[in-house]
Amino acid sequence: MNSIEKKFEKLATDNAPGQETRQKAGNIETLLRGDRLAGTPVDFSHGDVDAFAPAPGSFEAFAAGVKRGGAQAYTEYRGSLEIRNMLADRLASFTGAAVSADDGLIITPGTQGALFLAVASTVSAGDKVAVVQPDYFANRKLVQFFDGEIVPVKLDYLDARNKAGLDLSALEDAFKAGAKVFVFSNPNNPAGVVYSRQEIEAIARLADRHGATVIVDELYSRLLYDGTDYTHLRATGIDPERVVTIMGPSKTESLSGYRLGAAFGSTRIVGRMEKLQAIVSLRAPGYSQAVLSSWFAEPAGWLSERCAAHQAIRDDLLSQLGAVEGVRARKPEAGSYLFPRLPELAVSTQDFVRILRHQAGVTVTPGAEFGPHSTDSVRLNFSQNHKAAADAIERVVELVGRYRK
Amino acid sequence: MNSIEKKFEKLATDNAPGQETRQKAGNIETLLRGDRLAGTPVDFSHGDVDAFAPAPGSFEAFAAGVKRGGAQAYTEYRGSLEIRNMLADRLASFTGAAVSADDGLIITPGTQGALFLAVASTVSAGDKVAVVQPDYFANRKLVQFFDGEIVPVKLDYLDARNKAGLDLSALEDAFKAGAKVFVFSNPNNPAGVVYSRQEIEAIARLADRHGATVIVDELYSRLLYDGTDYTHLRATGIDPERVVTIMGPSKTESLSGYRLGAAFGSTRIVGRMEKLQAIVSLRAPGYSQAVLSSWFAEPAGWLSERCAAHQAIRDDLLSQLGAVEGVRARKPEAGSYLFPRLPELAVSTQDFVRILRHQAGVTVTPGAEFGPHSTDSVRLNFSQNHKAAADAIERVVELVGRYRK
Repeated sequence: MNSIEKKFEKLATDNAPGQETRQKAGNIETLLRGDRLAGTPVDFSHGDVDAFAPAPGSFEAFAAGVKRGGAQAYTEYRGSLEIRNMLADRLASFTGAAVSADDGLIITPGTQGALFLAVASTVSAGDKVAVVQPDYFANRKLVQFFDGEIVPVKLDYLDARNKAGLDLSALEDAFKAGAKVFVFSNPNNPAGVVYSRQEIEAIARLADRHGATVIVDELYSRLLYDGTDYTHLRATGIDPERVVTIMGPSKTESLSGYRLGAAFGSTRIVGRMEKLQAIVSLRAPGYSQAVLSSWFAEPAGWLSERCAAHQAIRDDLLSQLGAVEGVRARKPEAGSYLFPRLPELAVSTQDFVRILRHQAGVTVTPGAEFGPHSTDSVRLNFSQNHKAAADAIERVVELVGRYRK
Repeated sequence: MNSIEKKFEKLATDNAPGQETRQKAGNIETLLRGDRLAGTPVDFSHGDVDAFAPAPGSFEAFAAGVKRGGAQAYTEYRGSLEIRNMLADRLASFTGAAVSADDGLIITPGTQGALFLAVASTVSAGDKVAVVQPDYFANRKLVQFFDGEIVPVKLDYLDARNKAGLDLSALEDAFKAGAKVFVFSNPNNPAGVVYSRQEIEAIARLADRHGATVIVDELYSRLLYDGTDYTHLRATGIDPERVVTIMGPSKTESLSGYRLGAAFGSTRIVGRMEKLQAIVSLRAPGYSQAVLSSWFAEPAGWLSERCAAHQAIRDDLLSQLGAVEGVRARKPEAGSYLFPRLPELAVSTQDFVRILRHQAGVTVTPGAEFGPHSTDSVRLNFSQNHKAAADAIERVVELVGRYRK
């Protein structure tokens, strides 16, 4: 195998969320116990934008962008200045620290696009990068793609209380060992836990002390549940040139079909990201950029209603799962992910995930995608029709019983 | 300067088309001769989608995609199977060779996205890559970004007749010297010349003989002028696993605001491209994918009318430029680029480009973006309002006179 083959081997997407339809059924029939369970199929690998519709005004904003014509189709690579001006103000007010519309903000195709550009702009071959375990699978894959070296930092999300559970001394050790970049999601994807103010301030202090850059993915930071305090890293007083914050309207706002993301903060890194965007996808998403005019400008009450609806689903699913012997799950404080640890099963988690799909019409993402210590867990995006999701979890509970060791 | 700073230094976009608004005026005032020339500003750095409107049905197809909801927002990373099925048939019929909807086609955010993924999937650090001079600027930048080594192959576009003018023996030498990838655009961007059947067959033969992969950017292959024969590389009998063809509806069809591209051919490379797309932009452009239903399905007569309108602009602009002493330009056979060589001027081409914008409201792209032998040329995308473009060229002619050495 030559080097490029090896590189793409590591990028395996066979079990990645959304790619399940490409999986072969394989030997699944030989593993089955009992009959199929009837019920509405639920795909927990991503949110259901039919159950939670795109934020009001988004399509109208897109249509207005198309009407605007060339001026909207062709903008600066980093996005239209008018939209950046509008967005910079809203993001500054949301995160509690200034955003430069001119030099410190870039609009990207999806939040994934922002994450790719941020990692590509900070990580070279051989660079050490601190990566949380578990965390969003692309963090690890991106570092590997650019031949960086992953320095793992464990998140004790299951047992920690009133904090996410980051091993701060492991993070300090990573910086001492030469890690120049730290990438993490807050709220954590897949566990849905939020970093405490103390944790975020400690990250800021350590990054400043060791001259490290921090890429923080705050994709779910608007979907907060009762009692959750959220601290934006960029508002801690950390050197602003050390931080890139990533957000986008794909999740809480259900605008993922428009493929929009944004990165803001360090002007040095945003400058690089734009140069790279020129050859990765040329420019910010033409007409879709216009949809950002509806972002952070939703009707009064819209966001709190959306949070409440998700919180109700969270609570029901969690109580269903909590009743199962051997299942452990921490209550998510934000976002729409549940990350339960399963009891010991007679089949591998990978096979159990296939069985769930085959026998119960339930799609979940295996924990191994998020880190090597989560192989006994599965991730569920509970941004779904409430009733269908609860019914689907009943089927999961039933199958956990059947396949228990 | 550390290695990542050097890398991004090479990605400079200061003179890239579309980025002109970020340029500082600098010392421009000290160079000016005579007064400003009044007239409608024309931005020849890209086509004007207000002058040539998006193909009929595109917005309606997008709106239908939004209505479809989650099924359109979340597809396989390589794009919806339904759309791939439809597109594979149309692309096979257009290019004259089979396309596998399942394994041999990927939908990307813009044609730029396809090109990025194709180069990233075939070029590793230290690999030699044959690159045409002049050619689309991203070809060179992409190879540099992945630390490949460029082996230049000259295109004698100005003096060749009935062929593009590729130096085939230089291409053979490049392959003999170890180049494993050849990337080129046909029709050539910036020169608008089309490779002859003999040239394309020779490229196929050489690639097969030396085991090389060819990435061919056929973005403009639908916009052909009277008397032009077009040969698709993939229809020559070349090993189909050696070729990736890139197209998209951004140019002829003016759908650039929807950010759509497609790559098809080698299943091995398309497979890698999808794995990479997962971490670059996650998935094919959600709702925008639906717009592809209108592609290659335009109303009868629409394409030939669009070709005729562009041909008329080409002819007028060319005769205006041809009347200027010392200007040399070959008649484009396809696409909407003119690439005139200017006579010797008292200022650098770079400065002349800034002067054109400042003094005449005319934006063009300096030839140096496309290769080291084109520093005395400028590129103009003549997909513009006919009258405004002709008037703008009058101003260019006037300023060539003023700044002539």
